Amino acid sequence: MRRIMEAGRLCLGLLASGRGSNFDAIMTAIIRRELNATMAVVISDNRDAAVLQKAKVHNVKNRFVNPRDFNSKSEYEQHLVELLQAESVDVVVLAGYMRIVGSVLLDAYQDRVVNIHPSLLPSFMGLHAQRQAVEYGVKYSGCTVHLVDEGMDTGPIIMQAVVSVAQDDDEDSLATRILVEEHKIYWRCLQLLAEGRIYLEGRRIFIC
Amino acid sequence: MRRIMEAGRLCLGLLASGRGSNFDAIMTAIIRRELNATMAVVISDNRDAAVLQKAKVHNVKNRFVNPRDFNSKSEYEQHLVELLQAESVDVVVLAGYMRIVGSVLLDAYQDRVVNIHPSLLPSFMGLHAQRQAVEYGVKYSGCTVHLVDEGMDTGPIIMQAVVSVAQDDDEDSLATRILVEEHKIYWRCLQLLAEGRIYLEGRRIFIC
Repeated sequence: MRRIMEAGRLCLGLLASGRGSNFDAIMTAIIRRELNATMAVVISDNRDAAVLQKAKVHNVKNRFVNPRDFNSKSEYEQHLVELLQAESVDVVVLAGYMRIVGSVLLDAYQDRVVNIHPSLLPSFMGLHAQRQAVEYGVKYSGCTVHLVDEGMDTGPIIMQAVVSVAQDDDEDSLATRILVEEHKIYWRCLQLLAEGRIYLEGRRIFIC
Repeated sequence: MRRIMEAGRLCLGLLASGRGSNFDAIMTAIIRRELNATMAVVISDNRDAAVLQKAKVHNVKNRFVNPRDFNSKSEYEQHLVELLQAESVDVVVLAGYMRIVGSVLLDAYQDRVVNIHPSLLPSFMGLHAQRQAVEYGVKYSGCTVHLVDEGMDTGPIIMQAVVSVAQDDDEDSLATRILVEEHKIYWRCLQLLAEGRIYLEGRRIFIC
């Protein structure tokens, strides 16, 4: 069993493509001192992402990085790694980052890239997980915080939360209720990392 | 939206390969008059299945049908259909029946074959669902009652129950806790059928 990281204040870098509601929830936990972390930088691949504005409000460094400015995904990610390392980031937080993370970023931050996905993985990997859940007809869905590996939404699971699906739920109503749970569990997982309590054995995570 | 069946006393036929713990739970609900049904016949593909003995104890007709006595799966299932129809069975209950149901049985009992699976489908279809869940490292699993279609564990979901997975759970301890929930939800789904409250729209089930 291998400890992911020693206890200590986390230095977070957050990658997001959209509104950044999980950024808000994490910032709130930091401000309340429930999460022992610093938000060092927010990076978005979307110039118009609301998360960049939110970062400014919190006086958090924020960068738009246009993937089209690079010749390859590797070069793009190499630039991300440089930005993250320049801020001494030790954990990369994906929050609605709409790209599959490649080997350059994963190699630089092995077992230090975390993501949240709006389903009870391994059900409903990929895009539109809430819509998938409604269309499949499950009675429970939820969200999953996991370490990121080479697959899409396949990495080791740190924490999950369950949300019941009502039979009149549509994609939006379910997404709204799942988001409430996302905001509760994401920063808690980060705090477990900060407390040095997360261990990995094979693909299973143990909290000790 | 199509109603699966009108309200009325169910006439059940149960197919099982093993111990038949779900048979016990269903019989208990019938005896307590919580489930408006008659158990007309229990059929097993396994001569030594404990469920056949349990059926005898309850004075329920019971049959061992050896699939090897038939030239094809179709002929085997045609025989099952004849046995079930001879008892006026209107709903076929799979309870640890270790075979994939084929088109002969499904055509004779369209949307009237129900199964229970020890995971939160669509996660962990197929064999050893509890082991799959432990090895994957999910934090929640459970069980699913569903209508049977041509796929393996892919049919429309009637009801699910959630079970948390402890980090010291193994396949057996998780299976034991899931089984408790199976015994609670399977007969309830059958009672919803008996009440004529289950409707199908596409692959989604609505309880009205």
